Amino acid sequence: MERAHNLTVAELGQSRSSVIELRKADGYSEQPQSRAQTKALRIGVAGLGTVGGALLEALQGHPNYGSDRHAVVTCVSARSKSKARSVDLSQMQWFDDPVALAASDEIDVFVELIGGADGPAKVAVETALKRKCHVVTANKALIGEHGAELAALAEDNGAQLLFEGGVMGGTPAVKILRESFVAIKVNNIFGILNGTSNYILSEMERTGRPLADVLVEAQKLGYAEADPAADIGGFDAAHKLGILASLAFSFAPRFGAIKVEGIENVGSEDISVADSLGYRIRLLASAERVGEGVLAHVRPALVPKAHPLAQTKGASNALFIECEGMDPVFVQGPGAGARPTATAVAADLADVMLKVTRPVFRMPIHSLKPLEAVSSAHVRTRAYVRLLTKDKPGALAAITESLARYGVSIDSLHQNPVEDVDGVPITFTTHSVSETKLAKAVRALAGLSVVVGKPRMLRIAPFKAIDD
Amino acid sequence: MERAHNLTVAELGQSRSSVIELRKADGYSEQPQSRAQTKALRIGVAGLGTVGGALLEALQGHPNYGSDRHAVVTCVSARSKSKARSVDLSQMQWFDDPVALAASDEIDVFVELIGGADGPAKVAVETALKRKCHVVTANKALIGEHGAELAALAEDNGAQLLFEGGVMGGTPAVKILRESFVAIKVNNIFGILNGTSNYILSEMERTGRPLADVLVEAQKLGYAEADPAADIGGFDAAHKLGILASLAFSFAPRFGAIKVEGIENVGSEDISVADSLGYRIRLLASAERVGEGVLAHVRPALVPKAHPLAQTKGASNALFIECEGMDPVFVQGPGAGARPTATAVAADLADVMLKVTRPVFRMPIHSLKPLEAVSSAHVRTRAYVRLLTKDKPGALAAITESLARYGVSIDSLHQNPVEDVDGVPITFTTHSVSETKLAKAVRALAGLSVVVGKPRMLRIAPFKAIDD
Repeated sequence: MERAHNLTVAELGQSRSSVIELRKADGYSEQPQSRAQTKALRIGVAGLGTVGGALLEALQGHPNYGSDRHAVVTCVSARSKSKARSVDLSQMQWFDDPVALAASDEIDVFVELIGGADGPAKVAVETALKRKCHVVTANKALIGEHGAELAALAEDNGAQLLFEGGVMGGTPAVKILRESFVAIKVNNIFGILNGTSNYILSEMERTGRPLADVLVEAQKLGYAEADPAADIGGFDAAHKLGILASLAFSFAPRFGAIKVEGIENVGSEDISVADSLGYRIRLLASAERVGEGVLAHVRPALVPKAHPLAQTKGASNALFIECEGMDPVFVQGPGAGARPTATAVAADLADVMLKVTRPVFRMPIHSLKPLEAVSSAHVRTRAYVRLLTKDKPGALAAITESLARYGVSIDSLHQNPVEDVDGVPITFTTHSVSETKLAKAVRALAGLSVVVGKPRMLRIAPFKAIDD
Repeated sequence: MERAHNLTVAELGQSRSSVIELRKADGYSEQPQSRAQTKALRIGVAGLGTVGGALLEALQGHPNYGSDRHAVVTCVSARSKSKARSVDLSQMQWFDDPVALAASDEIDVFVELIGGADGPAKVAVETALKRKCHVVTANKALIGEHGAELAALAEDNGAQLLFEGGVMGGTPAVKILRESFVAIKVNNIFGILNGTSNYILSEMERTGRPLADVLVEAQKLGYAEADPAADIGGFDAAHKLGILASLAFSFAPRFGAIKVEGIENVGSEDISVADSLGYRIRLLASAERVGEGVLAHVRPALVPKAHPLAQTKGASNALFIECEGMDPVFVQGPGAGARPTATAVAADLADVMLKVTRPVFRMPIHSLKPLEAVSSAHVRTRAYVRLLTKDKPGALAAITESLARYGVSIDSLHQNPVEDVDGVPITFTTHSVSETKLAKAVRALAGLSVVVGKPRMLRIAPFKAIDD
């Protein structure tokens, strides 16, 4: 087989024309000789789904990204060799086994687009790093769960491990937290990191339909996976939050430090009541400094409508970064998809081509403590509670007394009879109160004879309303 | 004099405690010996205003930012040696002349915080680059006007030239356009790049007061300079836009390619009429691909209220990036100020410490064509026009006939008598029309006998309204 980095004449012709086309669009002068003068960065891509396909397309012109090397995909691996693809693979070496590809000395960098926290993705990445081969991945589960050990493997072997494509694909988040805020203390980050959940909540908001309905439609439209557990359950967002929190606060990632609650129980009623109170419900990924640790949560929360995170709709992702002594920085954009994710992966490849060498999590991994979860007991929060009461005299009195007993002070209370519901729904929001007291009060409410079923509680995001 | 990079015992003690304090806040393990093991990056800072002061504070703990070197400010230069400062300068070598500082072989990197496109800032930066000394600057005028020649000097000498602090200080804009979108075609960028103008427009909006009033107050509050020409006139935003457009579209910067119009003539009436039509007025910095060139403007424009740029208020800055085949990316945050700008400068220093080597404007400067301004003649736009007519029969007919003659089609038209005004103000918005036809139509209106004075014209930003 003719190896792809020893280019054939036909190939050179093809790639020359792509390069020239790109240069016309941008402000390049045409320098057709430059290609021959540079060395190839030999890339192996494992996983040729939509992201892999978009990446191969982006790399077809053998871009140099301003470095003295040009990108050449020499080897690929995927589940099906025979599947029709938009890019001609005939000049690339095929591997059935991604681990064998990662072990091949025909590549300088291994691109992992297989997915999954464990299994072949992990073994392949470890194999590459151990032999000092750089790794670029879009696999948030892998980095979210095994980031610390993989970073150690990378740094001990002098290899780069990059994963911009794993978080808010296409929207720079990893790069800015790793590189732009090194000289300032990041106090909190708040994100919308799962496009599927955000799409579903936005659709529930827009149409008034319940989650189950919207989910089925989202699955038909390709916005949600057949098994939506990782998205709806908050785990995908938690993987990403763990990565971002580690970078923001200089900890080694530890997935167990993230508390996760999904949007499964968010009802249309919650969305409409929140709306009337001036809020939208978002699956909020938040990591806040508390003492010497970090309080990191993924959970549905009420966000004031005028806040940029409430205005992040559909499948978009967003990140709100609060630093000490500086106004917040807000980034919003695509969070997934073939083109955006491939763009992020290629940007990481550009860093490899430019020989950029950084610690994986901003500071050398052996100097970092694992992300430490602090108890939320003494954290104060505002909450939204919705419960169903029996239509009896004294119901409201029993509720307000329970709250008063635990020092929970009511900010607003709404009692609106609803047709077809056996009982009277009561919704209230609280003033700021400690999580401990709040939990006790909600437990007490659940025990009241006038309360039917379990009260539903959501936090109100700690944002001052931004005037519109 | 004891040189600062040969640290005194007292200094070591002082810096040790800062480092430890930082490490406690983050997830570091304490490794007090690491400082002695690393080499110093010797930094010379020219300009000790508020940004310089904040930078010295940020560097007091001799951070290593994940590199194998630690930052030591060895030399400084400023106008007044005797001024009281928050950081002890006694261990730093003092230079009265920034150019002499730039020439000193006691420094590895020269930080330019003097300001101004020409004069000592330019000479000092050239001096440093010529002797292969890296340069970090927050000077947008210098890079905006002389970026191409300075980039050539840097690249020819193998020195880095970094300027994140010059654009949207504290909010990553240079880094992301240089590094995150290398594998995708950026079609358009739209920014709010001058905090002073945005503060003034926001205040006019909020209070209904005229520009002159709000400007005086902004000057008292320190939001506007004594000479506001660079801010109000759009030149500061144009410097920044030129830098960002060069990075976004791979051109060498050329300040002459940017068309500039300030906010001097924006009246309270424009703001209130725009409000009633669903828009806010912003000093919009836009650069759009047109054919093989770029159409780059700084000018006041009407932005739909629901667009994130309309929601960027006060002294904030924002950037909206549209790439081919990908949803837009939006970044918002501080645009100036001591702490944010020093944070950006320190992030650039971190890249120098990590020995990151990149072409200054993303691709080697000698391969880039100068930013090419294209004619706007065939560009289509929507416009807002306000004019004063004599209170005579037939005035409206004369206006609508003039517009029809040049093929300008009216979208909405408002005629509201105003007290204390001699004449009848008429405001209309147009459908999309070529700039050529629009200009002819507006000239024709100005020549009508029923029109008093000069019609005022503002473009409507080419954003679809985002539903709220």
